Amino acid sequence: MLNFDLHIPTRIVFGKDTQSQIGALLKPYARKVLLHYGGGSIKRSGLYDAVTASLREAGLEFVELGGVVPNPRLSLVHEGIALCKKEGVDLILAVGGGSTIDSAKAISVGYYYAGDVWDLYEQRIPAEKNLPVATVLTIPAAGSESSDSSVITNEEKQMKLGYGDPHLRPVLSVVNPELFYSLPANQVANGVADMMSHIFERYFTNTTHTDLTDGLCEATLQTIMKNALLVHEDPRNYEAWCQVGFGGTIAHNDILGLGRAQDWACHAMEHELSAIYDVAHGAGLAVLTPAWMQYVYKTNVNMFVQFAVNVMGVQGSYRDADALVLEGIARLKEFFGKMGLPGSLAELGIDEANLERMAKKCTGVAYGREHTVGGLQKLNWQDVLAIYQLAK
Amino acid sequence: MLNFDLHIPTRIVFGKDTQSQIGALLKPYARKVLLHYGGGSIKRSGLYDAVTASLREAGLEFVELGGVVPNPRLSLVHEGIALCKKEGVDLILAVGGGSTIDSAKAISVGYYYAGDVWDLYEQRIPAEKNLPVATVLTIPAAGSESSDSSVITNEEKQMKLGYGDPHLRPVLSVVNPELFYSLPANQVANGVADMMSHIFERYFTNTTHTDLTDGLCEATLQTIMKNALLVHEDPRNYEAWCQVGFGGTIAHNDILGLGRAQDWACHAMEHELSAIYDVAHGAGLAVLTPAWMQYVYKTNVNMFVQFAVNVMGVQGSYRDADALVLEGIARLKEFFGKMGLPGSLAELGIDEANLERMAKKCTGVAYGREHTVGGLQKLNWQDVLAIYQLAK
Repeated sequence: MLNFDLHIPTRIVFGKDTQSQIGALLKPYARKVLLHYGGGSIKRSGLYDAVTASLREAGLEFVELGGVVPNPRLSLVHEGIALCKKEGVDLILAVGGGSTIDSAKAISVGYYYAGDVWDLYEQRIPAEKNLPVATVLTIPAAGSESSDSSVITNEEKQMKLGYGDPHLRPVLSVVNPELFYSLPANQVANGVADMMSHIFERYFTNTTHTDLTDGLCEATLQTIMKNALLVHEDPRNYEAWCQVGFGGTIAHNDILGLGRAQDWACHAMEHELSAIYDVAHGAGLAVLTPAWMQYVYKTNVNMFVQFAVNVMGVQGSYRDADALVLEGIARLKEFFGKMGLPGSLAELGIDEANLERMAKKCTGVAYGREHTVGGLQKLNWQDVLAIYQLAK
Repeated sequence: MLNFDLHIPTRIVFGKDTQSQIGALLKPYARKVLLHYGGGSIKRSGLYDAVTASLREAGLEFVELGGVVPNPRLSLVHEGIALCKKEGVDLILAVGGGSTIDSAKAISVGYYYAGDVWDLYEQRIPAEKNLPVATVLTIPAAGSESSDSSVITNEEKQMKLGYGDPHLRPVLSVVNPELFYSLPANQVANGVADMMSHIFERYFTNTTHTDLTDGLCEATLQTIMKNALLVHEDPRNYEAWCQVGFGGTIAHNDILGLGRAQDWACHAMEHELSAIYDVAHGAGLAVLTPAWMQYVYKTNVNMFVQFAVNVMGVQGSYRDADALVLEGIARLKEFFGKMGLPGSLAELGIDEANLERMAKKCTGVAYGREHTVGGLQKLNWQDVLAIYQLAK
C-alpha cells in the first residue's frame, strides 16, 4: 500500500426532507449566495421553491445563475465569476447534478484567480483560494458533491478537462434520494455507469496489499449494481435510491482509492467522446470500460480474476483465468445492457471518422506534448485507438 | 436506511516516515503545543525525539504532560487543563494510543468549559468550543485518531464514561504503521478486539436496507481479521499493519455506521469491567462480545446469519439458522483465541463478586436512573447480568 493524505471536510446531510434545511445549514458560511442551476427541472419539481424559501427563511440573500448544461461550459463559468464579483457573493450553492456542481466549483476557484480560470484546468495550477461551494444534489452520478475534482468543457477549443484540487471539495452537501425519483431512466443509467467507473478507476491497480480498499470497492460496486436494477425497475424505491445515492458519494470522495495507484484511462478516453460528440459521460464510459478491460487485462490478470469473482460473482476453474475474466466482462456488459446503456460507439452515433483524432487528443499528441494515459497499463495513442476500435 | 449527518474534518496523513512531518503539518494551527503522552515507550522508541525535533524545526514551542495510563484518568485531565491555561497552549498533540488521545480530547473541551469537565461526560452536555487536537498514533485500536468520542475514567467514582461530540474530532492525525512494530502481542490483540467491536456495535442493527454499510462493515471486519493474524505472526509485516491500522481508523470514524441504528451494549458492559478491575478494554470486549451474541441473536436471527456467512465464512443449511449463527460465534471465539485474547471473565481475573453490581451500574440502576443498554435488543440489568454470567 502507498502512503496517503486524506482530508474530506465536506459535511453530508443525507435523507428525507433535508433540502428544506439548506438555509439554516448555510447560515454559518454566507450572507449572500449565488444559486447556480441548470434548466427548468428544479422549477418544475418544486425544488427551486423549497430551496429559495429555505434561504429566505434563514435571512440569506441570493442571486441566480441558471443555464448549466451537461458537459458544462467555460463561457457560463466566466459569466458566473463576473456575477459573483459584481454582487459580492460569498458562497455558491449548486442545485443540480455533477455538471452544475462542477460549474460552481470552477466559478469558486476562478473568482480568486487573476488570469483565465481555464489556465487552472489546462496547466493544473494549484488553486490558492476559493469561494465556498455547497450543493443540493439532484443526480447521483459524478460524486462531485464531495470530490475534489471538476470537469469543464472549453467549447471553443473542443476540450473537456478534469481538474483536481483540495479547494474543490464542497463545504456542505445535502442529499435527499427522494429528489432522484423524477430522473429519466437514461440519466439514472448514465449516473450509475459514472459512479461505477469512479470505483473502477481506483480498483484496477498494480499496487499490492490493498485488502481493505479492495473490499470496500467490491462492496460498493456490488451494492450499486444490485440497487441500480431496483431503481431502474421502480424509480420511487427510496431505500434502493439511498444505497445508489450514498454509493455515488463514496465512489468518488477518494476513500476507496487510498494508498492505491489509480488508473483513469477510461475517464480520459471518454472525455474525448464528450468533447466532440457531446455524448453523456456515463454512456461513453459504459461503452469504453469493457473494451478497456478486454484490451488491458493481461497486464494484471489476477486483478481481473478478482474483479470477475468478487464483483461479478463468476465461478469456475482458476486454471483458465482468461475464461473467468472474459465472463466477468461479459456480465458487466450485460448489467449495462439491463440498465439500457449503449454497448458500442455506433449506438452512441459515433463512427470511425474521429477515432484517430480523439486518440491523439487524449494522449496529447495533437497538442505536441505526448503522454500516456492510465495507471494499470500505460496507453499511448495507438493503444487508445485500438480500444476505440474494440468499442465500435 | 435512516437519515444521517456526516462530517469528518480530520486529515489523515498515513504511511512511512509521516511522523517526521508533524511539525510542518501543525504549523497552520498552532504556535504553542501541549505534547501529551503516556509512559516511557515513546522515549525508548525514539518517537519522542523525532516528534520534538520536528516541532522545533517548524518553530513551534511546546510544553509536556506525560503519564497517561490505560483507562485514562480524570485527575490527569484536570492537570492538563490547568497546564494549557497557564502556558497559553493553542493545540494539544497526543502522541500515543486511544488513552492518550482520549485524555487530550478531554483536556481540549475542558479547557473552555466553566465547570468540571466531568459534567460534559456525565451529563452529556454538548461542547461549545475546544482547543484543536492532533495525534501521532502509536496503537491502532480505539479509532480515537478520527472519532468524535472520548472515554475517561473517574477514579474517585469508579466510573468509566464515553462522551461523543463533534468537537472531539482531531484536526489532524499521523498514522505510520511502522510505529506499531514494537507493540507487545497482548496490546495488538486488545486493539484488534476493540476495532472489531467498533464495527460490531454499528453492524448489528434492526435497521433494514443497509446494503452499502453492511458490505463496508463486512469487508473491514474480514480485512482486519486476516491481517491481524499476519501481524500476530510477524509484528514487522508493514503491509499487514497498513490494513489493520487503516481498518482501525475506518472502524470508528462513523462511515460504517451511517444511516443505521447502532448497538453499543458491549462497550457499555465492558466499561464496567474496566472501571472496577482496570482490565484492558479490548480484552474485556473479546470476552463479552460472543456472550452478548449468544444472548441476543434470536432477536434478529437473520442479521446474525448474515454475520456468520458474510463475515465468518460459515457454510451450511439455511434451514438451521441457529447452527449457522452458533458456528459463526464459535469461529469468532476461535479467532480471538488465536490472537491470544481471553475467553472468559475468569481468565481476566474477574469472579462473581461484582457481577450484579456492575450490571446495575451499567444500566443506571445503581444511580437511581434506570435505563436499558443496546440498540438491537434493549437490555435491562437482569439481561446484562445474564450476559456477564454467560461470559464467566
